[in-house]
Amino acid sequence: MTEFTPAGIRVIACDIFGTTFDWRTGVADQVSQIAAEQGVTIDGGEFADDWRDRYLPSIRCVNDGERGWAHLDTLHRESLDDLLETRGIAGVFDEAARRRMVRAWHRLPAWPDAASGLARLRGRYVVAALSNGGFALLTNLINSSHLPFDCVLSADLTRTYKPAPAPYLNAADLLDVEPDQILMVAAHTWDLDGARQAGLRTAFVERPLEKGPGRPADRAIDTTSDLAAAGFDELADKLGC
Amino acid sequence: MTEFTPAGIRVIACDIFGTTFDWRTGVADQVSQIAAEQGVTIDGGEFADDWRDRYLPSIRCVNDGERGWAHLDTLHRESLDDLLETRGIAGVFDEAARRRMVRAWHRLPAWPDAASGLARLRGRYVVAALSNGGFALLTNLINSSHLPFDCVLSADLTRTYKPAPAPYLNAADLLDVEPDQILMVAAHTWDLDGARQAGLRTAFVERPLEKGPGRPADRAIDTTSDLAAAGFDELADKLGC
Repeated sequence: MTEFTPAGIRVIACDIFGTTFDWRTGVADQVSQIAAEQGVTIDGGEFADDWRDRYLPSIRCVNDGERGWAHLDTLHRESLDDLLETRGIAGVFDEAARRRMVRAWHRLPAWPDAASGLARLRGRYVVAALSNGGFALLTNLINSSHLPFDCVLSADLTRTYKPAPAPYLNAADLLDVEPDQILMVAAHTWDLDGARQAGLRTAFVERPLEKGPGRPADRAIDTTSDLAAAGFDELADKLGC
Repeated sequence: MTEFTPAGIRVIACDIFGTTFDWRTGVADQVSQIAAEQGVTIDGGEFADDWRDRYLPSIRCVNDGERGWAHLDTLHRESLDDLLETRGIAGVFDEAARRRMVRAWHRLPAWPDAASGLARLRGRYVVAALSNGGFALLTNLINSSHLPFDCVLSADLTRTYKPAPAPYLNAADLLDVEPDQILMVAAHTWDLDGARQAGLRTAFVERPLEKGPGRPADRAIDTTSDLAAAGFDELADKLGC
């Protein structure tokens, strides 16, 4: 772990899915509800897992140039269609139901420590959402959760997904700071690896339940970062907020 | 006044300087303080007025293509240098003092009704800052005021200033809504004229003291808009929030 100087940090950039919001619970609950309205019972958690498993491959296709730019909503829709087909239940969900399922990602519960931790961090730092979500999706998440972010930095601003350098460097550019004045906060090793390669400082936040009780999440011990914390409150503690 | 349908509105887009924040008081106080540290006394309010008078001509030069894109901070700095020269006090303010004066625009008091009104509006609508300020400037204003905005939409995202159509249309694009689902809220006729021409709905908020006690501000009676209110609380009342 490199020497960490919180005095140099001016911006806390928070990843959103899994780090700030509990996507699995939120998607599972809404998908189960929509399925029930169609008269079928599905295990929402398993469904959310399978859907999320298609996420990293789908953004890699965009970043690798295998396809043009596509919004996360579009990628979610394509992977949903594929998932429903694979499960043999494509006929159950019509266009309206599928749209609602994609919109489930716009309304998720925050982890319990997010509101208090972010409010404390905001007293000393600019607090930004820096996510692969679209601008509308992130704004809707913040609006429904009332989390105290100062600004939204989304993938569609650069038409590139993390962990490519552009989203991280765009954050520094728009916020008029050097990359190493941003502390990227995430629960995923791949995100912090990308941030570090772009010159940002990094903080790992452990979310052991991100993928549910049956699947392991990334761990601090396996991740290279400047700081590690068990949540946003502990991160605020460690940064003296 | 055209028929107004608040049911169709999904986003409240608020102008910042003068509409949400009292730029004159904030700039006057900070400039007076910086001048006092240099051993000179200036009327901060008059100085702020003279500085602000250079604002619309400076953004017009960018929008008319007379010069390339320049951040508002850059325009503020150029007009400050010009103003100090015109007043014969250029020698009093060194580089560090001038930088602090430009940064005064990043930290301003909000009008007293902004926090409560925006919080109420946020319960029903997405609430965005839509300003000619830069992304960093707007984020700093929101960070220091803790106003409950959901997102920042700044001129540097389109490298164009209001009242050109691009900033208004970019807001609709990023937030994934139609232009007429955005209600542009401003204290300035020219801003609402630009918004309306871009297809947005408009609300005029009166700020009679924006330009100080000695200068008239724009008035609702002279402005074409879908709605008019005496402040953000009255706007929230009129929108049923």
